Parts: sequence; C-alpha cells; structure tokens
Amino acid sequence: MLDHLILQKTRLARLAPLVLSALLITQVAPVAASDHGHHKVQAKFNQAGELARPANIKEWISIGASVTPKDMNNGKPAFPEFHYVYLDHASWSHWKKTGEFREGAMIAKELVSVGSKSSASGSGYFAGDYVGPVAVSVKDSKRFAKSNNWGYFVFGDDKALSAPADESCVACHKANAAQDMVFTQYWAPLRAVSPKK
Amino acid sequence: MLDHLILQKTRLARLAPLVLSALLITQVAPVAASDHGHHKVQAKFNQAGELARPANIKEWISIGASVTPKDMNNGKPAFPEFHYVYLDHASWSHWKKTGEFREGAMIAKELVSVGSKSSASGSGYFAGDYVGPVAVSVKDSKRFAKSNNWGYFVFGDDKALSAPADESCVACHKANAAQDMVFTQYWAPLRAVSPKK
Repeated sequence: MLDHLILQKTRLARLAPLVLSALLITQVAPVAASDHGHHKVQAKFNQAGELARPANIKEWISIGASVTPKDMNNGKPAFPEFHYVYLDHASWSHWKKTGEFREGAMIAKELVSVGSKSSASGSGYFAGDYVGPVAVSVKDSKRFAKSNNWGYFVFGDDKALSAPADESCVACHKANAAQDMVFTQYWAPLRAVSPKK
Repeated sequence: MLDHLILQKTRLARLAPLVLSALLITQVAPVAASDHGHHKVQAKFNQAGELARPANIKEWISIGASVTPKDMNNGKPAFPEFHYVYLDHASWSHWKKTGEFREGAMIAKELVSVGSKSSASGSGYFAGDYVGPVAVSVKDSKRFAKSNNWGYFVFGDDKALSAPADESCVACHKANAAQDMVFTQYWAPLRAVSPKK
C-alpha cells in the first residue's frame, strides 16, 4: 500500500513538468463543429513548440493499415508491426471535396503487434496488441515551412507532449511519400474518395 | 457515344429491380443523433429480409485490419487480401461503456488488394486498391435468433440490396470468433477500449 503511494508520488513528480507545460499551451482549440458534427480537432502547441497528444485518435477516420512484420525485417522493423493510420475528421471532409490536405491536417499512426499468422480465414498477419509510440504529423505552413509544411511528433506511452521528432521523419516522407508528404500510395480509403482520379 | 448511352440504359435496366426493392424498404432509420453527433446508423431490411447496403462505411470506426495475402494462400485466399473492418458509431459508444455489442450493431468488412511488399518503412504488406465484395453483419436477436443473433450479408459492386449469405459465414463465426460471433481476438482497437479487461 505504502509502496503504491510512493510509486504514485514518483509518477506525479515525473508528470509535473508536463502538467506545467500544458498550462502554457497557447493555442486552445475553439469548439467548432465540423461537417459531421464532430468537434473540429486542432493541433495544440505550447510556447516551446511541443505538440499536445491528440485525444481519441481511434475515433478519427481510418485511412488504412500496413504491416511490416518482425519476421520479414530480421526481427527489427522500423515500425513494429501493424501500422493503423488515421486522419482527423475535418481533414477527411476537406480531402473528399478537394483531394488535398487542409492546413491544420493531422495524421496519426498507432502500432500494433502481430498476434497470429493463421486464422479461420487463412494464413496471413492478424493483429495482437498495441505496442510502441504513437506518431502524429501536423500540416502547418507557418511552423513547418522548412519541411514542406509538415511537422512530425512521437509520443511514448507516458508522453502528453512531444517536441518535434528528428529529421529522419521529414527526410523519409520527402523522399518517398506520393502526395504532399503523405504516403497516399498505400492509403486506399483516401484514394477511393478523392475527387482527383 | 451511342455505345455509352446504351451501356447506361442497360445498367439502369439492371438496377431497376433494386430501385423498386428499395422503395419497399419498411424500416426507415429514425434520424437520432448518437453520442458523437453522428446520425445513428440503423440496418434497413425490406419485406423480403434483404439488407440495404449501408452508406459511408469508411467513416465508421475502424476496429482493425488483417491481411491474408495471395502469396500466403496458394493464390486464393478466402478474402483477398487486406480486411479493413468497421463498427458503426453508436455500437462503438455502447462497446466502450459495456464491452458488448448492442442490439442493432453492424460490422462491415471491406477488402483491399496488396499493392506492394516493400516500402521505405521496410518489407511487409502495403495496400493497393479495393477488390471484391463488402460483407456486413447485423446483430438482431429477432431476425437472427437461430444464428446466435447475427445475420451475414455480402454486397457485390453493383448490389444495393443483399439476401442473407449462405450458412458458411455463420458456421465459421460460431466456431472461431472469440466474443459474440465477432473475431475480437484480432481487433486490437476494440480490446483496447473495452471496460472488460
């Protein structure tokens, strides 16, 4: 019981700087309803340029899933293993109208392990549990003009705020993404609803 | 040009019975807002017990993705190849509160080909384009009492209505699904938000 309390205190102490930083967040999202009646999600940065972890990513629009399994990458894929990728609702609505990512768009990637390689529907890759950090990219032409308008952030399990990730995200998206720094070549739902065919 | 018109007429003629059937649909969904401000989606059946194809499945909640690639199934997987699986919003809200599927729950499975086996993030399976039919299951304890309360429907590209699928869906879900006829063992997002841990 005492151990438990001490552990809690230690955790609180570790979180204190995050809580303080959160108080300094300057851009508070106005509560504006999008087309779908959702509150329009807006990226929130503090004065240090750290991004606040977005809530309820699993309720954003899924723009697809890929898998880079351990057993196809010598046990060490860059992103183990399933990539579940989401776009915020307002940006999905904008995309359906324009085939482009709006200013303020956010894309999030959650990672899930491979849980099984066979099921009643055949052999393949089937999801296990959530693993690893959550990655979030934000389109903001003022903040991220130097990196083609997108910024990249990575949230470990206990992180409520993230400083911009190192240059490797930018470099890889610049070199390999099909449209506006996004790997649209792998996101079938985006391509299916784009007015640009 | 003439060919095109004839093709259009032929298509219209083929669709006519569907349009007529649609007019006979008896259960029209009341427009009730769910927790999230979404219109509550409701399964619509006609008098013959055929299900109307639900709209905007890609905007439902993603409950995960699996892949049964051709190259792991002798070229002929039962469901080629990525399975993108969705739950309607009201049922997601209910699941988060209860860890159970509400009466009226709908789950949809869309199929996407494998487009690539390597990308900047490593070797694996990456989505190509939509292929094959869309499968929809509906929980309705009155209509489907004999099959553990769930009915199964399959919509080909040109189908706006579907009669119940053959017994193979029911048999496989009965034998292999972890919870209430649903393969929750593979749907990490569902497990992550369930209050039943």
